[in-house]
Amino acid sequence: MNKPSGFSAFAEKARPALREELRVAITSSADHGTPELQNMIAYQLGWTGENAGPKAEGKQIRPLLVLLAAEAAGGDWQAAIPAAVAVELIHNFSLIHDDIEDNSSLRRGRPTVWKNWGEAQAINTGDAVFALANLSLMNLEKTLSRETVLQAGKLFHTTCLRLTQGQHLDILFENLNQVSLEEYWQMVSGKTAALLAFSLEVGALCASAPDDLQSNYRDFGHYLGLAFQAQDDILGIWGNQEQIGKSNTGDLVNGKKTLPVLYGLAQKKGFYEGWSAGPIKSKEAAKLSQMLEAEGGRAYAQNTADRLTDLALTALENAQPHGEAGDILRELAGKLLHRKE
Amino acid sequence: MNKPSGFSAFAEKARPALREELRVAITSSADHGTPELQNMIAYQLGWTGENAGPKAEGKQIRPLLVLLAAEAAGGDWQAAIPAAVAVELIHNFSLIHDDIEDNSSLRRGRPTVWKNWGEAQAINTGDAVFALANLSLMNLEKTLSRETVLQAGKLFHTTCLRLTQGQHLDILFENLNQVSLEEYWQMVSGKTAALLAFSLEVGALCASAPDDLQSNYRDFGHYLGLAFQAQDDILGIWGNQEQIGKSNTGDLVNGKKTLPVLYGLAQKKGFYEGWSAGPIKSKEAAKLSQMLEAEGGRAYAQNTADRLTDLALTALENAQPHGEAGDILRELAGKLLHRKE
Repeated sequence: MNKPSGFSAFAEKARPALREELRVAITSSADHGTPELQNMIAYQLGWTGENAGPKAEGKQIRPLLVLLAAEAAGGDWQAAIPAAVAVELIHNFSLIHDDIEDNSSLRRGRPTVWKNWGEAQAINTGDAVFALANLSLMNLEKTLSRETVLQAGKLFHTTCLRLTQGQHLDILFENLNQVSLEEYWQMVSGKTAALLAFSLEVGALCASAPDDLQSNYRDFGHYLGLAFQAQDDILGIWGNQEQIGKSNTGDLVNGKKTLPVLYGLAQKKGFYEGWSAGPIKSKEAAKLSQMLEAEGGRAYAQNTADRLTDLALTALENAQPHGEAGDILRELAGKLLHRKE
Repeated sequence: MNKPSGFSAFAEKARPALREELRVAITSSADHGTPELQNMIAYQLGWTGENAGPKAEGKQIRPLLVLLAAEAAGGDWQAAIPAAVAVELIHNFSLIHDDIEDNSSLRRGRPTVWKNWGEAQAINTGDAVFALANLSLMNLEKTLSRETVLQAGKLFHTTCLRLTQGQHLDILFENLNQVSLEEYWQMVSGKTAALLAFSLEVGALCASAPDDLQSNYRDFGHYLGLAFQAQDDILGIWGNQEQIGKSNTGDLVNGKKTLPVLYGLAQKKGFYEGWSAGPIKSKEAAKLSQMLEAEGGRAYAQNTADRLTDLALTALENAQPHGEAGDILRELAGKLLHRKE
């Protein structure tokens, strides 16, 4: 695409407003003698510390999806900003805690919060960000009806529960020999898809869209999350190393039970035997990835990703997204799902 | 007191209703293939595992305070149950995370959640309980106006932020040589008093009490928390060992910067020198506690506790608590504040 992207233009317009509302939201964490707590949160958001800036801030896809859905569903993106901020905060809450749970030292190229301030402060900072996300959502009251705000609250709290259910399964799976495909999708539905589904649904809710259109937006987010994960699982084994910015067989070496792996294990052939023999070493990974491909793991995952992509795009069309924001949602869906068109 | 306690009778009446609403609340954590997540929460609540039962469940003072305030402010305690459940859940959320942050292996005589299931699952289970608390509060909508539910939500989320601010300071203080009394009170206000203040305020809110009475209930809870902490700090150094069920100089050996200690350090006399010489050994603790008492630390803390107790009881009287529930609140305040009358 050589023409200027509608998404980039929208993001450029919306980001300053998002950032300002985020800034106001986290300011209250510095009350009562706790400026360092605010500093930790600002660091997580990519605003302070070494290498602060756009890369450290992350792409902010989720909050932008909230705003785009609000606009595409016939509302005003600015009225949905408190919901977008709640989404961005809850995403960062989950990153802070996930990084501790996964023992990850790096996030967006910088030391993680627990690495800088220790686990105890990091757990607590995640909790503070969770509380700030809840508070931020209440600011919808300034522009929307009480009924809508309560509805948004119920959806949001349910989404947060879903996030923890997905994470619970993800941690559980690390120590299980066998994980069924059903269990895998339960995990991904919570861990990856739930917040995307909420982002789109709450945008449409803020626009007071009819219930069935809200459901379509939610479905779009849900399938977008599942398709994205299936795609990501493929790239984690067969991705172009330069394109994904990390070793393309890393998922095999790390023993991650991704979609192609689960398919391969169920075949009980050569890949299953290689995997079962113990942790896969770097030098064996290429051979095992070829074996997995020969046994149908790649094709299965690609078929699944394609099917989920279709479901996502169908749900988006059923949501009848309006105007420029609608076009941008289509553009973004295509980008996220690695499609050319 | 030989006559049957009004509090005990009320607790006996209310606990089954609390427990049932708690049970319903945590049931949703077992959805989507996560029964073990529910099991972890039920364990934290004292319902399952070895030595499950009343001791493991804890005293449930906070949720009972919600219900008593609702009744004493002229409402119906049953209408406030979702708020009481939210309070009990958020208390347990903070216990799960505090136990990880403090590296505590035991809670109410049993292994802590992280000890049983590992840190990663425990952090995540705390997060799930946080989400369940938020969801539970929304159930107030069944009996109260939308305006009241939104007001309760704002108070609750602000309280959760205050809890994390208090905990942030508590962790911070462990590695500071100097902590001012102002900083100490900021910590206690968040960590101990904020949830008690919310418990009483939200009870009065559920009863639709006038704003100034709600403030009085909140103040009662706030000062109750501060007075309780000051009292607890005294018992941690000079308590009757049998009465408090732990070593009475434990706080000195553990280097806890409690109210009498901070007073003693500020005097820069013998206690200051003994404390500054390095970690206090068990055999030195008795001598240092005597020194601290001689230098005025005990009297200062007792004076402070008395003053805060007066403020708490005055706030309670200003709240004009009605009927039997009002009498029970007075009884409970007396008990919690270690007063004879």
